[in-house]
Amino acid sequence: MTAIQRVREDSGDASDGAALALPTPYLLFVGDVHERGYAKTAFGLKDWAPDKCVGECASDPLAVTTGLPRMTPAEAASRGARSLVIAVANSGGYIPASWQPMLLDAIDAGLDIVSGMHVRLANIPGLTEAAWRKGRRLIDVRTPPADIPVATGRKRSGKRLLTVGTDCALGKKYTALAITRALAQRGIDADFRATGQTGIMIAGGGIPMDAVIADFEAGAAEMLSPDAAPGHWDVIEGQGSLLHPAYAGVSLGLLHGSQPDIFVVCHEPGRRVLLGEEEFAVPSVEEIVELTVALGRRTNPAIRCGGVSFNTSELNESEATRLMAEEEARLGLPVADPIRGGPAFDRLIDHCLG
Amino acid sequence: MTAIQRVREDSGDASDGAALALPTPYLLFVGDVHERGYAKTAFGLKDWAPDKCVGECASDPLAVTTGLPRMTPAEAASRGARSLVIAVANSGGYIPASWQPMLLDAIDAGLDIVSGMHVRLANIPGLTEAAWRKGRRLIDVRTPPADIPVATGRKRSGKRLLTVGTDCALGKKYTALAITRALAQRGIDADFRATGQTGIMIAGGGIPMDAVIADFEAGAAEMLSPDAAPGHWDVIEGQGSLLHPAYAGVSLGLLHGSQPDIFVVCHEPGRRVLLGEEEFAVPSVEEIVELTVALGRRTNPAIRCGGVSFNTSELNESEATRLMAEEEARLGLPVADPIRGGPAFDRLIDHCLG
Repeated sequence: MTAIQRVREDSGDASDGAALALPTPYLLFVGDVHERGYAKTAFGLKDWAPDKCVGECASDPLAVTTGLPRMTPAEAASRGARSLVIAVANSGGYIPASWQPMLLDAIDAGLDIVSGMHVRLANIPGLTEAAWRKGRRLIDVRTPPADIPVATGRKRSGKRLLTVGTDCALGKKYTALAITRALAQRGIDADFRATGQTGIMIAGGGIPMDAVIADFEAGAAEMLSPDAAPGHWDVIEGQGSLLHPAYAGVSLGLLHGSQPDIFVVCHEPGRRVLLGEEEFAVPSVEEIVELTVALGRRTNPAIRCGGVSFNTSELNESEATRLMAEEEARLGLPVADPIRGGPAFDRLIDHCLG
Repeated sequence: MTAIQRVREDSGDASDGAALALPTPYLLFVGDVHERGYAKTAFGLKDWAPDKCVGECASDPLAVTTGLPRMTPAEAASRGARSLVIAVANSGGYIPASWQPMLLDAIDAGLDIVSGMHVRLANIPGLTEAAWRKGRRLIDVRTPPADIPVATGRKRSGKRLLTVGTDCALGKKYTALAITRALAQRGIDADFRATGQTGIMIAGGGIPMDAVIADFEAGAAEMLSPDAAPGHWDVIEGQGSLLHPAYAGVSLGLLHGSQPDIFVVCHEPGRRVLLGEEEFAVPSVEEIVELTVALGRRTNPAIRCGGVSFNTSELNESEATRLMAEEEARLGLPVADPIRGGPAFDRLIDHCLG
């Protein structure tokens, strides 16, 4: 028996490997955050996983709202919620003392706590003790599973699509979610496979690929999208960029382990330099296509580009439409903004499947 | 102040960044191992770091010998030894009970214990308690430093050479050691920078790159070879291969963070399939040259190949000489076996410096 088989069997759920599985549905905690920008996780969950969200709660009545009904943890528990998700961030990445009473209320109400913040929940005095006393779990979605095997490179059954990027933070997660939704609308069996903390909360499980020990990176990606039925699609959230000076190793391990049949390049027109690494130019879409094929064919010789996803949030409708049409003609590949959707995105899905 | 500056300043030793520094000189422990193959670390230390080795000790008088004087831990301590190094492996990667009395003797004699084995020293009952009581350290060289920053991609001063490979375990460490020695013989200031457990013991420090969290892989490589004098060379031990289905992410993070001016491709002629991944062919030297330039120029646009290192241990002298001459003509690059040395290796060093 190989290591990966052993890990899968221990997990007791063959379809999800040993990847993290979160207790859903959630109560979304928005803390005392007043800006939407700091509540991206809450809005992402409401937009992409409404069936997993019972309501929201806040430590400050004036905090930003997702539009979901506001309730106490006890009310949420009575409506079936199984965990409170810390669905906001703050600039320090820490959990302020003012949030703690509501977290303790949630534990008292029988909810687990789920966090994607840098600080570990177990490091917050009082919280660990309360959770232990009530038999509740403190779940840090940044913590990868313990027994990730070294990758084998073995070809797995089923179909896989990976979103890749010219940089970080330009829509790889939303593109994967939109593609998963579009496949489902066509009656195709598809799972979104999450690789970052917000994605993991939306999916209710996954592996935080950037937190895995480097030697096991490709092995984690293999675990994340296990063997599946021949017609099934795993749509895998990409991380980083193969030309990012800090994160390229994460991207390459994810590419090799995902062994995608199809990749979609995510790009933000107008972004000239890498986010936070201003001395580096954003590579062209063509460079990323070429590199992804050159490297990805090592574990899937049939790999090909399914199209290009543009994040056109900085452009108006007519600018976006014109630019995407121009780029589609120039690249010879479908170019679409999945948030705008429309016929261009349908063509992209066709090309992925075709 | 950037994170990397902060980490460097905390380390108190600018030339070594915050990379691990081991207590030398060593007493080499060969346990009860009877085959040279299981004592590769001991022979590597004796061959490449004789000035760091006071002697050897064994738990079985019939154990393999490195040829260094055999002595008790107390004798070694009186001759200046500062640590006992577990310089052997066994097939299980564990520390048998029969080794433990001598490890405890070493602690009693005032030595630290250094191990590169999979099992953590802290998990061995009795050892932790004894070390704590005597104020000694248990050092696992597979444990990376705690505060590795995210890579910045900033160009650093000094020169860097990285060994890269067509596969694992074919001579990347020995090639880097031999190049470091050859540079020193020419009066060039050079440091061997270790990235794996045996290399770290030989160098007396370094970072186990395969054990670093994926997001910090390139950052660890930046830490490993900090700014240096313009004429100084860091010769960095490579890991894995850019075309290895399990470890390519490690190799790419190390390449980006090392930002080498020169790379030397390590290859074993006659090896047809990857070690332990038999369904994958060993890539050609040309493929690795091309990929290393394509990816490495992201952090060092001046990157070039300095030559090819052949592991010809399976060939006789005349076969090896003929093959290397043929390949040198075919590739248009110096090809040498650093263990055999000779004019071919001199040409390789010339080409690296030229």
